[in-house]
Amino acid sequence: MSQLLRTRSATTDAMLAIFDDASTLRHAFGFEAALAAAEAAEGLVSPEDAAAIAALCGTIAIDPAELAAEAAHAGTLAIPLVARLRAGMPEAAAAVVHKGATSQDLADTVLCCQIRDGAALLAQDVAGITAGLAVLAARHATTPALGRTLLQDARPIGFGLRLAQWRAGICEAAERLEAEVSRHAVLQFGGAAGTREGLEGKGAAVAARLGGALGLRDVVPWHSRRGGLAGIAAAVAILVGALAKMARDISLLSQNAIGEVYEPSIPGRGGSSAMAHKRNPTGCQIALAAGHRVPGLVAGILFGLPAEEERGLGGWQAEGPAMAELFLLAAGSAAAMAEVAQGLEIDMAAIGRNLAVAGLGDAIGDSAALVAQLLADAGKG
Amino acid sequence: MSQLLRTRSATTDAMLAIFDDASTLRHAFGFEAALAAAEAAEGLVSPEDAAAIAALCGTIAIDPAELAAEAAHAGTLAIPLVARLRAGMPEAAAAVVHKGATSQDLADTVLCCQIRDGAALLAQDVAGITAGLAVLAARHATTPALGRTLLQDARPIGFGLRLAQWRAGICEAAERLEAEVSRHAVLQFGGAAGTREGLEGKGAAVAARLGGALGLRDVVPWHSRRGGLAGIAAAVAILVGALAKMARDISLLSQNAIGEVYEPSIPGRGGSSAMAHKRNPTGCQIALAAGHRVPGLVAGILFGLPAEEERGLGGWQAEGPAMAELFLLAAGSAAAMAEVAQGLEIDMAAIGRNLAVAGLGDAIGDSAALVAQLLADAGKG
Amino acid sequence: MSQLLRTRSATTDAMLAIFDDASTLRHAFGFEAALAAAEAAEGLVSPEDAAAIAALCGTIAIDPAELAAEAAHAGTLAIPLVARLRAGMPEAAAAVVHKGATSQDLADTVLCCQIRDGAALLAQDVAGITAGLAVLAARHATTPALGRTLLQDARPIGFGLRLAQWRAGICEAAERLEAEVSRHAVLQFGGAAGTREGLEGKGAAVAARLGGALGLRDVVPWHSRRGGLAGIAAAVAILVGALAKMARDISLLSQNAIGEVYEPSIPGRGGSSAMAHKRNPTGCQIALAAGHRVPGLVAGILFGLPAEEERGLGGWQAEGPAMAELFLLAAGSAAAMAEVAQGLEIDMAAIGRNLAVAGLGDAIGDSAALVAQLLADAGKG
Amino acid sequence: MSQLLRTRSATTDAMLAIFDDASTLRHAFGFEAALAAAEAAEGLVSPEDAAAIAALCGTIAIDPAELAAEAAHAGTLAIPLVARLRAGMPEAAAAVVHKGATSQDLADTVLCCQIRDGAALLAQDVAGITAGLAVLAARHATTPALGRTLLQDARPIGFGLRLAQWRAGICEAAERLEAEVSRHAVLQFGGAAGTREGLEGKGAAVAARLGGALGLRDVVPWHSRRGGLAGIAAAVAILVGALAKMARDISLLSQNAIGEVYEPSIPGRGGSSAMAHKRNPTGCQIALAAGHRVPGLVAGILFGLPAEEERGLGGWQAEGPAMAELFLLAAGSAAAMAEVAQGLEIDMAAIGRNLAVAGLGDAIGDSAALVAQLLADAGKG
Repeated sequence: MSQLLRTRSATTDAMLAIFDDASTLRHAFGFEAALAAAEAAEGLVSPEDAAAIAALCGTIAIDPAELAAEAAHAGTLAIPLVARLRAGMPEAAAAVVHKGATSQDLADTVLCCQIRDGAALLAQDVAGITAGLAVLAARHATTPALGRTLLQDARPIGFGLRLAQWRAGICEAAERLEAEVSRHAVLQFGGAAGTREGLEGKGAAVAARLGGALGLRDVVPWHSRRGGLAGIAAAVAILVGALAKMARDISLLSQNAIGEVYEPSIPGRGGSSAMAHKRNPTGCQIALAAGHRVPGLVAGILFGLPAEEERGLGGWQAEGPAMAELFLLAAGSAAAMAEVAQGLEIDMAAIGRNLAVAGLGDAIGDSAALVAQLLADAGKG
Repeated sequence: MSQLLRTRSATTDAMLAIFDDASTLRHAFGFEAALAAAEAAEGLVSPEDAAAIAALCGTIAIDPAELAAEAAHAGTLAIPLVARLRAGMPEAAAAVVHKGATSQDLADTVLCCQIRDGAALLAQDVAGITAGLAVLAARHATTPALGRTLLQDARPIGFGLRLAQWRAGICEAAERLEAEVSRHAVLQFGGAAGTREGLEGKGAAVAARLGGALGLRDVVPWHSRRGGLAGIAAAVAILVGALAKMARDISLLSQNAIGEVYEPSIPGRGGSSAMAHKRNPTGCQIALAAGHRVPGLVAGILFGLPAEEERGLGGWQAEGPAMAELFLLAAGSAAAMAEVAQGLEIDMAAIGRNLAVAGLGDAIGDSAALVAQLLADAGKG
Repeated sequence: MSQLLRTRSATTDAMLAIFDDASTLRHAFGFEAALAAAEAAEGLVSPEDAAAIAALCGTIAIDPAELAAEAAHAGTLAIPLVARLRAGMPEAAAAVVHKGATSQDLADTVLCCQIRDGAALLAQDVAGITAGLAVLAARHATTPALGRTLLQDARPIGFGLRLAQWRAGICEAAERLEAEVSRHAVLQFGGAAGTREGLEGKGAAVAARLGGALGLRDVVPWHSRRGGLAGIAAAVAILVGALAKMARDISLLSQNAIGEVYEPSIPGRGGSSAMAHKRNPTGCQIALAAGHRVPGLVAGILFGLPAEEERGLGGWQAEGPAMAELFLLAAGSAAAMAEVAQGLEIDMAAIGRNLAVAGLGDAIGDSAALVAQLLADAGKG
Repeated sequence: MSQLLRTRSATTDAMLAIFDDASTLRHAFGFEAALAAAEAAEGLVSPEDAAAIAALCGTIAIDPAELAAEAAHAGTLAIPLVARLRAGMPEAAAAVVHKGATSQDLADTVLCCQIRDGAALLAQDVAGITAGLAVLAARHATTPALGRTLLQDARPIGFGLRLAQWRAGICEAAERLEAEVSRHAVLQFGGAAGTREGLEGKGAAVAARLGGALGLRDVVPWHSRRGGLAGIAAAVAILVGALAKMARDISLLSQNAIGEVYEPSIPGRGGSSAMAHKRNPTGCQIALAAGHRVPGLVAGILFGLPAEEERGLGGWQAEGPAMAELFLLAAGSAAAMAEVAQGLEIDMAAIGRNLAVAGLGDAIGDSAALVAQLLADAGKG
């Protein structure tokens, strides 16, 4: 029951891998193993039991489809996953698997691992885009070109100013995302009601060890305090919007009647099933389609903020899939725009011709200085 | 790279099957075969070529993952799909595959087949819910119970009135969905720019035959007139909202301090990974989570309505995945609520006790008549 | 504390009047007067009291700002409004004002009166648009023009086909809106918990009279069954989307490098504060801005569907302002597009020139027949 | 045509004043006066002309309704506003009013002044909330209470932990908002196409002086780089969500069957028009309704990020009203919750009774330490 034909076009294999079942299971078993180890280090679990848990977590093979069906029935992934662990180990170890943790501890921690990894992956493609645009913006900083506002010819600009603006928007968005992820993609460890009960007062120490092992900052449990995830979601959407802004302009500038830029020509890309002559802006299509999809995903996550009491019903359970979708769409956009940024074809003759036809002269004001300032500012935070 | 752990919990296998790759390919090849047959019937394609096309469409096996990667590269599914068909058949037939059609004809038609099938599947679970609720509403029409408004005790109601209201909301929503689907899940067949060019004036006749073969109404091409799909999307979301309303109430009524109803007790469902005593409203969780996710999906589709010119860039490409998600979430909600409706546990003692404690008497007004009217009205449109 | 500078540009005075304080008060007092009259007719209230209530409702003057502040404090409009009525009439009449009604009965009924009036107003502007487009579509049905897809030159079309498609989208959306309004803008009358308690079994009769007096269909109370309002909201948004589609195309076609159509030239409209040469597509701007704003409003209403128990907390209270905003934005769009449709400037020379430059011939397929079919179909439902 | 009855309940007079017509005009005339002064300081405008402009800007009286109608006609506020200024001053000064600026420079700068002021106002109410909650959280840190998850009794918690969690969510959100506003509520000054053309290379100097005079940071023009505003919008929504979380819990905890907390009893607040016995959670209603409305507003702003070229058509024009609405709703929420936080009634007996009935003991784990950590962390960033 693969679902690739409706998902793959909008994203990349690399980001799909970060959110796929294998990754989820790897992080989930990593959580359980690290939890047992942390509790052993604090004397809450015997070293033997922790070792048995770690061993099984490192080797257990589970059919994701079966587990997914069980999780759907149970209402949470943790229950069947822990049950399978327990079934595969000695009774003593089985008794302490998942000790002090609740389903949402596992779910949120796994999600935050994936967010962290997804953000790092995104940063790579963003770097490719901003590097490409920086070169082009500098090169064309003083190339007079027609500026357009409200879809009408306006006044001349340095062509590079447009590119520097795209880049600045992307850089700013990437910085916001990095800041939100580094602050809010964190360990979740609170137990049944978020009090770290049952750990003999060593909950904070266990959390510190567990976070250290998983590479996530340990913080006060946040089961029903979801603003951090909402901040991450919004930041992803703003990045997608910045990429879509670049795509919007490229698609407008590559209209046949304008023809100032084109996506790079890549064999097999941008064709039409009905018109052999066409060269469609396929990278832009991906980024613009993502721009249509992400705002609603953010709205859905914002709707869930008023979670009920110590853990909500329906809100946070809706976040994980939405967050994954946000990163998948951002990855598709970033990869598409990276390819475009690095191979963008700029038709200097068309730029000159369009400017001349407009008859608005070629005074580009402070374009060069503004480009320099944008290149200097953006990326520095 | 399966993605089941983050998708399966929110839906059903049956609805996943309607939108999965196998189904997409079956509908896509069905479209190409039926198109060739229709064109043959109108003398635009030779019977031999149409037969060759139909034969290959009936037998060709494609790896969805490979095709999905190719479609991602090409920017549309139709191009690699048609290329593979062409590669597998005689030159003469290859020349007329997909004749007169454009990528979006294929994409929209496949989507509408899936919408039609998805709506039919939903209708089954909805029928199960409304039948279950009708019995309960009638049975408890005159059972005095505490009505609550703004989360405060208000005045007595007939307990069945609450159930009849749930049912009426679901029935109305299901009727809207049926009407929208029957009107707007239709054939798309317009060719490159929506004029049915290249078919010797027989485009309408081909469309009629094609629609007949696929079981979809043939209409004027609607490549950039997307209000119908938006109407379907909104209708699905309203149905999900009606199901979530039922779930909201059940989850509130099954709070321990109230305890008037419970989801049916099903082994393995509703447990807690940290608290053995808990019985979580897992069906409600599914329906409420869907209620968080669908509004944003509708917003995304609405935002795409102002499509550019004869076929837009970014808008309609964002619709298909969102529409699939809507149906998947609706299916998960409906299945969960069907199970709940058919096994809802009602604690008459608790209902009586809560009413007595409130000290508001037991005057339930016209509850019985209103229940009767709701049961008589809803379902009739 | 007027707020016109940020609201007026997006709407019309006529629609503002339908949702303004004077209108709200007129409908609110109309409700109270008609309720008393209906109850008098059913023998629940004395004719004298009903007359006293009617008299005061017809003459009372209230400062909206004061009342709004009181309503904000009370949490509902009905409380201070009824208090003022009571303070102004004999004790006997005061005792029966608002008898059998609850705050939401008043709020929902007033809202539905405004929806009904707003929809009728919208229908007028829509009729102006569709009439204008019908003439233009027929006139240019066979004018060869360049069709564009994915923002690239595609194949020729009959220029009128594009206009007929705009019109069809608008007609379909207007029909959906009319159907939803006629079905769901209805009387709300259920009393405290929706049972019509305290009316001696005559609640249905009172509702029938009340609905008749106010021109609203009387139905079973729907305090927490809000799918109908959501259906109306979605229908408004789809209409706004259809108008924005027309605006999108006109703004693209009036780019200087294309120049096929222009908004009518109206003194003082479309200028630039910085560029005297510019002619901005101001009508399109209004319609496109509305297209950005309405999807989120619909999402907010959809999100409120899972209302709590007999009357929810937070959800339905969020609907009224969102619904008003939807109608205000739709009115601004429709008025702007009506002006554009009736004065659209079409540059035949530019159309011909662009087509010739593209070098794609002039085969427009079945454009004429499709125009005829669209003109015949749309508007008939 | 006042519109207070549908707006006032959701906000405060103080925030309405920040976004009302008088404020908009004051900021707009302040912009024009400061611009002329800055240009005079840079020798681009004569001191006399700048003085004449400043004088008129300080005294001119305009009817907002008239101006709003003119702006609606013109498509932008700047055109009629500048026209009125020009009409009122000597020809020489008239020639240099608004020199180097474009409509969006005025619109964005005014909006950013209002955002800055709105954020400062919000911060006051937030401070009242967090101070109130800090006291209560510390006081009840070790009070055993029943924790609830998925709307079911879960495990005991320290009652103060719940309050400290509310507070932490609000503090974090307020910090995000402050950071976004301080970084992104900035001067807009770029001229027709964003190049600061026509200022003899002194654009940056003018911008520095202008920003200094208006108290806004001067930055590179950002006409079509809107991620900063989107970041502010999302931050407001997250704050509203955090306030709504507090409201959600209070409304659940004040259900009659639970009764652990109540909104403060305030004469005239929370009554019912139909039920004298009721005490509705009216403050929570305001905050929860805002929680329904803000996510869609954010989605609308995110949709506009892919602005066209040097200044977009439809997107940024949709931002201003949405941003105002966000601040208005946040103000209503914050004021309501401030009142609640400062007067929250906590029923210790009910808390104890509910815990005892649940029979889950009273082990509250590390609640006290977690409260201490939350109080120490939050507010420090």
